[in-house]
Amino acid sequence: MIIDCHGHYTTEPENMRQWRQDQLKLVEDGPFKPSRDKLNISDDEIREGIGNNQLKLQQSRGTDKTIFSPRAVGMGHHLGTAETSLEWTRLSNDMIHRVINLYPENFVGVCALPQYPGVEPKHCIPELERAVNELGFIGCNLNPDPSGAMWTDPPLTDSWWYPLYEKICELNIPAMIHVSGSCNPNFHHTGAHYIAADTTAFMQLLIGNLFKDFPTLKFVIPHGGGAVPFHWGRYRGLAQDMGIPSLEDHLLNNVFFDTCVYHQPGIDCMTKVIPAKNILFASEMIGAVRGIDPETGHNYDDTKRYIDATPNITDEERRMIFEQNIKNVYPRLVT
Amino acid sequence: MIIDCHGHYTTEPENMRQWRQDQLKLVEDGPFKPSRDKLNISDDEIREGIGNNQLKLQQSRGTDKTIFSPRAVGMGHHLGTAETSLEWTRLSNDMIHRVINLYPENFVGVCALPQYPGVEPKHCIPELERAVNELGFIGCNLNPDPSGAMWTDPPLTDSWWYPLYEKICELNIPAMIHVSGSCNPNFHHTGAHYIAADTTAFMQLLIGNLFKDFPTLKFVIPHGGGAVPFHWGRYRGLAQDMGIPSLEDHLLNNVFFDTCVYHQPGIDCMTKVIPAKNILFASEMIGAVRGIDPETGHNYDDTKRYIDATPNITDEERRMIFEQNIKNVYPRLVT
Repeated sequence: MIIDCHGHYTTEPENMRQWRQDQLKLVEDGPFKPSRDKLNISDDEIREGIGNNQLKLQQSRGTDKTIFSPRAVGMGHHLGTAETSLEWTRLSNDMIHRVINLYPENFVGVCALPQYPGVEPKHCIPELERAVNELGFIGCNLNPDPSGAMWTDPPLTDSWWYPLYEKICELNIPAMIHVSGSCNPNFHHTGAHYIAADTTAFMQLLIGNLFKDFPTLKFVIPHGGGAVPFHWGRYRGLAQDMGIPSLEDHLLNNVFFDTCVYHQPGIDCMTKVIPAKNILFASEMIGAVRGIDPETGHNYDDTKRYIDATPNITDEERRMIFEQNIKNVYPRLVT
Repeated sequence: MIIDCHGHYTTEPENMRQWRQDQLKLVEDGPFKPSRDKLNISDDEIREGIGNNQLKLQQSRGTDKTIFSPRAVGMGHHLGTAETSLEWTRLSNDMIHRVINLYPENFVGVCALPQYPGVEPKHCIPELERAVNELGFIGCNLNPDPSGAMWTDPPLTDSWWYPLYEKICELNIPAMIHVSGSCNPNFHHTGAHYIAADTTAFMQLLIGNLFKDFPTLKFVIPHGGGAVPFHWGRYRGLAQDMGIPSLEDHLLNNVFFDTCVYHQPGIDCMTKVIPAKNILFASEMIGAVRGIDPETGHNYDDTKRYIDATPNITDEERRMIFEQNIKNVYPRLVT
């Protein structure tokens, strides 16, 4: 079985995007009580988006199941108000729930959280509980910077986040560390903010001691961990200079990296330095990069090919990356 | 000849660090007219720092010359006032000048610029001209985020920077894109801010069209270009989706990457995807990572070993990386 642990709902019906635009427009115009009841989308509209895109690519690439969450850039925690963020997040999670009900064999849900800059993460707990206990989701996306590349909230190791981590541990789910859009003109979202945030989150964890307080907490850092595998010597060396005996003991029981790295030399570098048990297969299709690589004739984001081809892992490790590691990290996943 | 294009003065005499602390303290306490005349350091004190450290390592590692600039985290453009930034930068550049006068065979100067958040970069021009025309420096460090990880100034492609670029081109020098310290608790300086900024700067250049306006402008992105080589497929794919026919034509006549990547698999990845003509040898010693890698028995930052060992380049390309590319990018370098 091959499980892709990182897919977003990027083929949502037009009505859903329009609802969000209307919501944000109404917030701008004045007081507004947003409501997800106003969204009207048929199952056929959902099938049209998924069936012609993610499902088709799953089948043609030989993937069995995708762990599926709302569009990452669409989360937009920094937009609107805390109230609109909550309603939009609920609606987005409901839509994921509809997708997994239509395709229970092919998709399993991960929720977005109704974060908002400056608002304590503990306020996300009711929606997290609803997503896991009522909608059957198996994980959450956690935005380390709900301000949208302004980085105004505390680092992931701050006690600011602790009540949410307690609930995450209690629910026995992992969190994928995933930012959303950028309102800072310095940071392009998929080309800079995502990759910089992945790297930054890892370094926050390195200098902190979060997993002493939460030994069962599990984080997935997407996009191959940003720059981390490429600079693995730097991180080993920085840790060593700080008196941390080994990154393995300090972080690698709790931190995992996905394989959203869109070329063979990147995956080769990653599989050379990161233990196979810490690597989770993922493609993020259909996502940031949609074209066909002229150097290979295949989609850049067809990452299964790079895992298949890399000489740095055994077949047993390949099976771990494609299936077993994901089952270990997402214990609520039933296949 | 082997030229290390990225070294900082990290072994400065205690008096120099103390001067800066006193300066910033006086700014806090009230109105203060800072003056670099108050610094008193003997040539022997400079020799003690350099001779026992950078020079010794140069010799033991087989490097002939280091392109040398003030301590990166020490630039601290976000600290104090615009006036103290100017005086501190002048003093720092003067100290580099003293080092290169003491060791003219071994070091060549690159200046810091007296940037300050919210102040137009054109105000750096007089100090840049002094450094190049009077002190004989061959390049400058350009901080893409003088706010210290708050990212409040415009991106590198904004016309905000243009008068400075005009002067840089006129002087026929390159700029190394190098941030300084971080005052944002989210960003560790050498582990997150540096690497995130390198990646972010590259993406700013990718989505912009700066080199159409400045075809002779040359930027060196340090630390292997942040995450860029590891995600080269992502960047090629993003460019392709944006209708940019090739990164080679769009950026690689103007953007160069140094080799401050502290392990063999990282250098292997970089040399696999980045054309050899765009790679410049560098170690940043003595810098962010000071220990010995237990996996190799050598210093993490002894990057020459990785270039020597990588199977991805020819001996001719190795010579380009060690010498010729650096001479091409730094035309004022006389060897």
